[in-house]
Amino acid sequence: MNYSIVIYLIGTLLQFQAAFLLLPALIGLLYREEEGYVYLIVAAITFLAGLLFKSRKPEVQKIRTREGIVITGVGWISLSLIGAIPLFLCGHTENFTDAVFEIASGFTTTGASVLSNLESMPRCMMFWRSFTHWIGGMGVLVFLLAVLPSNADGMHIMRAESPGPNVDKLVPRVRQTAFILYAMYMILTLAEFLLLILGQMPVFDAACLTFGTAGTGGFGVRSDSVVSYNSFCQVVITVFMVLFGVNFKLYYLIYAGKLKEAFKQEEVQGYLIIYAAAVILISVDLYLQIGSVGDSIKHAAFQAASVMTTTGFATADFDKWHTLPKVIMVCLMFVGACAGSTGGGVKVSRILLYVKQVRREVLSFVHPKSVKKIRLDGKGVSEETIRTTNAYLMVYGLVAFVSLILISLDGFDFTTSFTAVLATLNNIGPGLGAVGPMGSFAGFSAFSKWVFIFDMIAGRLEIFPILILFNRLTWKK
Amino acid sequence: MNYSIVIYLIGTLLQFQAAFLLLPALIGLLYREEEGYVYLIVAAITFLAGLLFKSRKPEVQKIRTREGIVITGVGWISLSLIGAIPLFLCGHTENFTDAVFEIASGFTTTGASVLSNLESMPRCMMFWRSFTHWIGGMGVLVFLLAVLPSNADGMHIMRAESPGPNVDKLVPRVRQTAFILYAMYMILTLAEFLLLILGQMPVFDAACLTFGTAGTGGFGVRSDSVVSYNSFCQVVITVFMVLFGVNFKLYYLIYAGKLKEAFKQEEVQGYLIIYAAAVILISVDLYLQIGSVGDSIKHAAFQAASVMTTTGFATADFDKWHTLPKVIMVCLMFVGACAGSTGGGVKVSRILLYVKQVRREVLSFVHPKSVKKIRLDGKGVSEETIRTTNAYLMVYGLVAFVSLILISLDGFDFTTSFTAVLATLNNIGPGLGAVGPMGSFAGFSAFSKWVFIFDMIAGRLEIFPILILFNRLTWKK
Repeated sequence: MNYSIVIYLIGTLLQFQAAFLLLPALIGLLYREEEGYVYLIVAAITFLAGLLFKSRKPEVQKIRTREGIVITGVGWISLSLIGAIPLFLCGHTENFTDAVFEIASGFTTTGASVLSNLESMPRCMMFWRSFTHWIGGMGVLVFLLAVLPSNADGMHIMRAESPGPNVDKLVPRVRQTAFILYAMYMILTLAEFLLLILGQMPVFDAACLTFGTAGTGGFGVRSDSVVSYNSFCQVVITVFMVLFGVNFKLYYLIYAGKLKEAFKQEEVQGYLIIYAAAVILISVDLYLQIGSVGDSIKHAAFQAASVMTTTGFATADFDKWHTLPKVIMVCLMFVGACAGSTGGGVKVSRILLYVKQVRREVLSFVHPKSVKKIRLDGKGVSEETIRTTNAYLMVYGLVAFVSLILISLDGFDFTTSFTAVLATLNNIGPGLGAVGPMGSFAGFSAFSKWVFIFDMIAGRLEIFPILILFNRLTWKK
Repeated sequence: MNYSIVIYLIGTLLQFQAAFLLLPALIGLLYREEEGYVYLIVAAITFLAGLLFKSRKPEVQKIRTREGIVITGVGWISLSLIGAIPLFLCGHTENFTDAVFEIASGFTTTGASVLSNLESMPRCMMFWRSFTHWIGGMGVLVFLLAVLPSNADGMHIMRAESPGPNVDKLVPRVRQTAFILYAMYMILTLAEFLLLILGQMPVFDAACLTFGTAGTGGFGVRSDSVVSYNSFCQVVITVFMVLFGVNFKLYYLIYAGKLKEAFKQEEVQGYLIIYAAAVILISVDLYLQIGSVGDSIKHAAFQAASVMTTTGFATADFDKWHTLPKVIMVCLMFVGACAGSTGGGVKVSRILLYVKQVRREVLSFVHPKSVKKIRLDGKGVSEETIRTTNAYLMVYGLVAFVSLILISLDGFDFTTSFTAVLATLNNIGPGLGAVGPMGSFAGFSAFSKWVFIFDMIAGRLEIFPILILFNRLTWKK
């Protein structure tokens, strides 16, 4: 392990964190809230800590898989812990655990909350927790790669932080890829923000909700999530949730004029087909309940997009729906968004690889001698990718089972416990039962909350980078 | 596809089915129940149908994978349909769907029931449904292989019918292996039967419950399952449930004097460790509730064995337990028993292979160049076995998801719907909620019952043989 480069880059990350913290301080100043000073002080201390970490320039700049993973894992844990300090100091959460839960939920774009009575909270805090969604969505280390001139090859960092079975470099250079990704991210963010303003949403709300949509996070500014905004704004958010759940390669291909290739991507097709099927099924069920075609489709489209892209906003309490739409929601929770998007979950491309493997196996029974290579978008998928994709499903199941057992000590009913684990591990936010869209995670014990914090960070980084931190061999010099 | 051998062997199977049906007819005669004649008539007709199927002796005796799978799949579907006829004719079920559900549940050793008021049912029927457990447990086609002198190599049939990722031939010849398996099965069955008689259980009950334990089925003869028998009998059943859930290779190795090798099997160790851990955790939780050490351990040991071996008997209503023990039960449902036992579920050996793959993946991140072969019991596991084992997990998940969506139309709560699918697909019997140990599947619609029938048969044959029946290529001449 090359400790010096790890320490140096964590130092850089701390300085970025300090810069991020200046924004809520500014908002505090703007709205004349005293809490703004807390953010300012924490920012200053974090910046100094960063300087200290960076005092020794590393001799070897090489970042191997191992260093990439450690920087990512340790980096994300530090982000959550430091980001939580102002919430705790201002007394917005009862204890430090709750503060870490809230900010880990922010950075990992989960959107699960332990806060109540959001309307009484200062704006600088509300802005900060929504802003963490936006930073966490595309990945803070990807951001660091995009803006930092460095000789180090950041591919291993990008691979550890970016979701999906396979990281495509859009262009040969990692730094340029990171830059393009962030450019597209900013353009889409700005577009949504302007549309929401056009829909007469207050500017502050529009900013926070845009951050929540862009990062597929789900923190709102009102206790009832998105219920009380007008239909136009709800439709805008629906559309942008779907857009942020798509593999960003789509936009790059469109930008490059390769329209046909863009929409021929199997993952994009699979994503849209699953989403459309879910919306149709849920709409029919809602129509039989509420009798209005328009409202049924609107609610179905919003909630399905919110859960599938792992955002977690709500215009309706889907915990009160029939069993069929509820079960569809749980399935969507598991599937998740596209790889290379800001969304979480298992990812559509992995699901495609699983289905393709089943098909290959059925065929191999009939024709034992013909075991064909699995192809995605016409290209053969390497055995290494298949191996990692399969191991992901297994480690996902293991983490889910162990988490479920640990948090079931709290005695919530099975549905609540089961979906609470799904909602945090897939970075969604709401589940069913006590953690439904109108519920909260506040009732869980501190122990369970740490389990959830682990699940959220593990889920965001797709588990392996976090597991690898616990391996003794990783830390060998 | 070699149709003639398939038809010929299905004919043989029908004649076996006819022979099996003579037993309940005999019981009917013994207890002077009119219903016995129905079984006699159905047996006669089935026998004649078998003769008809066997009228043309096949020219080619070769059984390839494809034929082995089709014989197994079609065979099991016929067994369930024909076995259901007497129940329907005698009016013990309201309709044919319920009759098929009950008998498919019997043959697949699920033990889920739609009957109520068992105490008023004729003994010949009670005997028949319990006896189907015994036949289905070790596999009816394995039985056929054991007793039938044939030139055909039955390996592909055995592979399709026997559970687990890999079928070990105990001795070089398939027929002899099948014979040894059935001999061990009979000895264990007889031992349990005699011990239950010794425990002063009525002879009829002892026979039925022994069939239920041996096949890891779970049909009882009383409405309260095993609650009202004495502690001695409950302990005997606990021990035998655990014994029937072990890979039968253990007994063969013990018999062959290879004691050390027998208990060094990783699957046997994993099975016992998981079981022991579950019993300890559940006991502690029960002790805090009921305050008696003995009763806590007794109930925990019984229920954990019942669910892990996928038997489904109950001495306590675990649906009323706390969330922690309930969640542990759901985890055990998923894990299941050993491969090469009469139990269902995903199987401990597969779980071991999954965990080993996760470990390999973690290590490969740290040392990218060293991807080691996975070993089980000191032997390298072939890539083909790994591939099939992984595809199994994926197809298992797919079938579970689709089933869950289909049956959720009935509007039962999420916990009931979710565990009902687990309970049938893993051939357990009871789940939680409305399908808990004291509940029943009677409330589901006919459509859902057919989904469950599919799941039970697919689960018993480990899904692929049933899926392959739906592939057009399978049926090509």
